[in-house]
Amino acid sequence: MRVIGIDPGLRNLGWGVIDVAGSRLTHVANGICHSDGEDGDLAQRLLSLHGQLTEVFRAWTPEAAAVEHTFVNKDAVATLKLGQARGIALLVPAQFGLAVGEYAPNAVKKTVVGVGHAAKVQVDHMVKLHLPGVKIVGADAADALAVAICHAHHLQSSGRLAAALRAAE
Amino acid sequence: MRVIGIDPGLRNLGWGVIDVAGSRLTHVANGICHSDGEDGDLAQRLLSLHGQLTEVFRAWTPEAAAVEHTFVNKDAVATLKLGQARGIALLVPAQFGLAVGEYAPNAVKKTVVGVGHAAKVQVDHMVKLHLPGVKIVGADAADALAVAICHAHHLQSSGRLAAALRAAE
Repeated sequence: MRVIGIDPGLRNLGWGVIDVAGSRLTHVANGICHSDGEDGDLAQRLLSLHGQLTEVFRAWTPEAAAVEHTFVNKDAVATLKLGQARGIALLVPAQFGLAVGEYAPNAVKKTVVGVGHAAKVQVDHMVKLHLPGVKIVGADAADALAVAICHAHHLQSSGRLAAALRAAE
Repeated sequence: MRVIGIDPGLRNLGWGVIDVAGSRLTHVANGICHSDGEDGDLAQRLLSLHGQLTEVFRAWTPEAAAVEHTFVNKDAVATLKLGQARGIALLVPAQFGLAVGEYAPNAVKKTVVGVGHAAKVQVDHMVKLHLPGVKIVGADAADALAVAICHAHHLQSSGRLAAALRAAE
């Protein structure tokens, strides 16, 4: 199964695609969709992000998707901006008919590193351990790959649970 | 010129379409795009809103669009939700090739009622005065019509300014 993870942001929206076969994870691709003031006003920036992310889905055809559920408590302006980018990050997988998992940053860290309050550098390190040979294009793409790994583990656990329930019937 | 105003919200996204000919405004249509938990998870709700608003644009073919720029300072969760719905409200007009105006609630009230801190009931009253015979389907649609009226006035002012500049050349 091919899984995409997305770390939403208006300026930098990270994405990472992995393949999952049993407990084996393989890196497929990662990148960052970018928008800034040069793309035009806010609506044009969202249109640009929507177009870039749609291209990623067309190119890599993921079968499962998850988005990081971050809160920015810095101020309402930042939270509103993030929300708008997050709207696009949730819309695109839904337009491709995929259910979208959502994970809080601490849940992602707990799955990938083992503790909920891991430093960013630890997350990067574990992403590279999980996906040998991966070249990561930037911090947002690393976070997105961590979300994909987290979703893969949760899908595997629920799959094992479903199998165990079937076996118990 | 046909103008659409949008009052974004995840549960109720109001819209209102008016025609502008010189200083004459005419009501065309108004309504509310709705999403709730029965539509599925958040991504499904955003997909539903995107589909409903796209249908509104197809049906009424607006040539200019504006979105209310609200902040919810209640809490970060509410602001993030609003941001996600706002992302959709900005994306759809951009997908139809329209520039999107943004107005703070106080700017809308100042244009429609004459004061920035008008009560909701005053806004409703003035929207009905501006658009004789209008039947408004709900509060969010009334707000959306107010945004459309505000945008129409600003387009007229900038048009008059452009004409005055041409005349002065």
